[in-house]
Amino acid sequence: MKTKTTPFSMCSEQVRPSFIRDILKAANQPNMISLAGGLPDPSLFPTQHLAKSAYRVLMNSGQEALQYTTTEGYNPLRRFIAERYHRQQGLAISSEQVLITSGSQQALDLIGKLFINPNDAIILERPSYLGAIQCFSQYGPRMLEIDLNKNGPNQEQLTHLLNSEQVKLFYTIPNFQNPTGNEHSLESRRATVDLLEKTSTFIIEDDPYGEIRFEGEALPTLHSMLPEQTILLGSFSKTVAPGLRIGWVIASSDIIKRLAVLKQASDLHSSHLDQQVLYDYLTHYNLDEHIASIIDLYKRRRDCMITAIEKEFSTNVHYSTPNGGMFLWLKFPSTIKAMEVLNRSIKEGIIFVPGETFYAEKAALNTARFNFSNTDETNIRYAIKKIGAIVRAMEMEERPKVKWWPLP
Amino acid sequence: MKTKTTPFSMCSEQVRPSFIRDILKAANQPNMISLAGGLPDPSLFPTQHLAKSAYRVLMNSGQEALQYTTTEGYNPLRRFIAERYHRQQGLAISSEQVLITSGSQQALDLIGKLFINPNDAIILERPSYLGAIQCFSQYGPRMLEIDLNKNGPNQEQLTHLLNSEQVKLFYTIPNFQNPTGNEHSLESRRATVDLLEKTSTFIIEDDPYGEIRFEGEALPTLHSMLPEQTILLGSFSKTVAPGLRIGWVIASSDIIKRLAVLKQASDLHSSHLDQQVLYDYLTHYNLDEHIASIIDLYKRRRDCMITAIEKEFSTNVHYSTPNGGMFLWLKFPSTIKAMEVLNRSIKEGIIFVPGETFYAEKAALNTARFNFSNTDETNIRYAIKKIGAIVRAMEMEERPKVKWWPLP
Repeated sequence: MKTKTTPFSMCSEQVRPSFIRDILKAANQPNMISLAGGLPDPSLFPTQHLAKSAYRVLMNSGQEALQYTTTEGYNPLRRFIAERYHRQQGLAISSEQVLITSGSQQALDLIGKLFINPNDAIILERPSYLGAIQCFSQYGPRMLEIDLNKNGPNQEQLTHLLNSEQVKLFYTIPNFQNPTGNEHSLESRRATVDLLEKTSTFIIEDDPYGEIRFEGEALPTLHSMLPEQTILLGSFSKTVAPGLRIGWVIASSDIIKRLAVLKQASDLHSSHLDQQVLYDYLTHYNLDEHIASIIDLYKRRRDCMITAIEKEFSTNVHYSTPNGGMFLWLKFPSTIKAMEVLNRSIKEGIIFVPGETFYAEKAALNTARFNFSNTDETNIRYAIKKIGAIVRAMEMEERPKVKWWPLP
Repeated sequence: MKTKTTPFSMCSEQVRPSFIRDILKAANQPNMISLAGGLPDPSLFPTQHLAKSAYRVLMNSGQEALQYTTTEGYNPLRRFIAERYHRQQGLAISSEQVLITSGSQQALDLIGKLFINPNDAIILERPSYLGAIQCFSQYGPRMLEIDLNKNGPNQEQLTHLLNSEQVKLFYTIPNFQNPTGNEHSLESRRATVDLLEKTSTFIIEDDPYGEIRFEGEALPTLHSMLPEQTILLGSFSKTVAPGLRIGWVIASSDIIKRLAVLKQASDLHSSHLDQQVLYDYLTHYNLDEHIASIIDLYKRRRDCMITAIEKEFSTNVHYSTPNGGMFLWLKFPSTIKAMEVLNRSIKEGIIFVPGETFYAEKAALNTARFNFSNTDETNIRYAIKKIGAIVRAMEMEERPKVKWWPLP
């Protein structure tokens, strides 16, 4: 029977393509300075070490590394991840509690598949990671937002939502959040856990940036405080290389088993070769030293960007000073639309991401995310100077025109 | 609010774990002879060539290969795939019509996401690929089955289903099907296309085995006959190596764009490193010569298995003689349950997959799939001899006991 209705599923129609991806296509133009992406600086990638690891794995155990493997992931890599949590945070995690995923993004997708029925309530920080908003939207939930303050989520709003309805998931990024750079304080973490443990809501703790810390002590994960109810996501994308697409999930063995059934249906397993190459790299070279070099470079770039913002922007522009990660967050005066700032910046050969793209609803149009990890200091200074001039010019245009009366 | 209801989504509860995966865990026991998996023989993997390719890519363009890339895939690889179809089959496919996926399995998942609403009707061959049944079940469709005959699907049943309701997808494996090894004849392909083009049903043409052809001419793809309505899936898992998880989708640019939005939400992109390494391998070495060596080995093993079956099994056992691929299909006498044959075979150190696992509904309990690609000829002969003896013994047990009357 031939009909004219759409052949596509209702859920697929709810997914919007990523605005960032479109901006990143613009970033490929020559000489464009990009504060837009969330890309690590590729000059830091351990290319030579990984070349040696790849050659070693393929020559020594290529027949194994190129064959199908178990959905849960390469066991030595799962054990490495579990032991690293133990060493760094004293967490008693077994390798059965680790699922290797094709980047953290796949972990979000599997979690959406496992938990979300259409119209289920989930809570997100406001603003939050665009990729999570996009991913969860595939499963048709109602996305409820709570404000993200400098030290963590607004606990009153969180309490109110948890008390007023059945909430499936609370998605949060406690360390150097994308897009704000904010970090939840220890007090905030304790309050979140105290609230959540009275409910049946699962915490999805996304932590791709936790190891990229410029200052201060590492704070305990929500998972360490409420292990049975927290699903912790990690990734090698920011510490080794994103092109490998290797991330992981930490959860109870029961949740891991359920996620593994869905992963099996989704892609059988993540690249076996990449998992073995990564494991060889991790066990032949020094990851901590490598991360130290990443921290050193990104911290200098953050400092450079902050100094430039202080110099070039009017005091009406507010910004975050992240203790780690790759982003800072700006609030222009309420009349200044970041999308218009972007339109003018593009003409100067500079791009960034307007903040409105990071909201599931009720977007703040005067906000922006600046990435500092993948632009050198000269270009950071140049870009901030240009954007500063654009914003100042827009502030002038917005001022009420004073009508001059002819003198009597 | 704390409640006792399941936190899990309705769709996730519909997915059954793969029985094959459980059998494959048994296969890891030492000395177990496995006719169970669908694994290529790892001795054929081009490990040294891939080692050189990996080293070359990482040393020459490691910063690019380790960075994030576009969701659609590495453009030179997309172009290579498009051009190979053009050279082999004269198909005019642009690289914009190619989406790189994390194996064919991910292509199935993205197609499920894009098309299937709960209770939508889809048609499968009976039996069909377990991974597709498992994958589609995530999206809650009604799976309608049509018999798969030696030369293709039962056209009367197909006609009846297409006329009686709105069908979203027809999932088919025209070349050396998993699990039967059957190949659709040219006549069958033409009949399928004639039927489908009168409907709005999309054909999902899964073709992982097409290049592993032992005899006969390659037949045209359904995609070449009905391009706008057919989504063609391919994979390097059987021709190069499955551990890389690199497959692809061929479809109209519109469908590819929609699938790419969903892939972006699912894992951002497939391993950039693996895509570049594979492309380097494909352009530095000779894939056709490599495939010829795969065909040579698998054909000898198929011949060996057929000869052994003819010798060891009673004439009540029917089997397919595939012209390619990795599997053949057996029908024991109707009273013989393949699961019981498996139970007895395991005690002899031999495993295979009972056919019942390949049906969405109404399983035939007396069927079995034997894989011949990953077992050497000595072990094939030994395994078939043992299974043959088990089946003959079961046939004897099933015979009606003749009661002997004492002579007068």
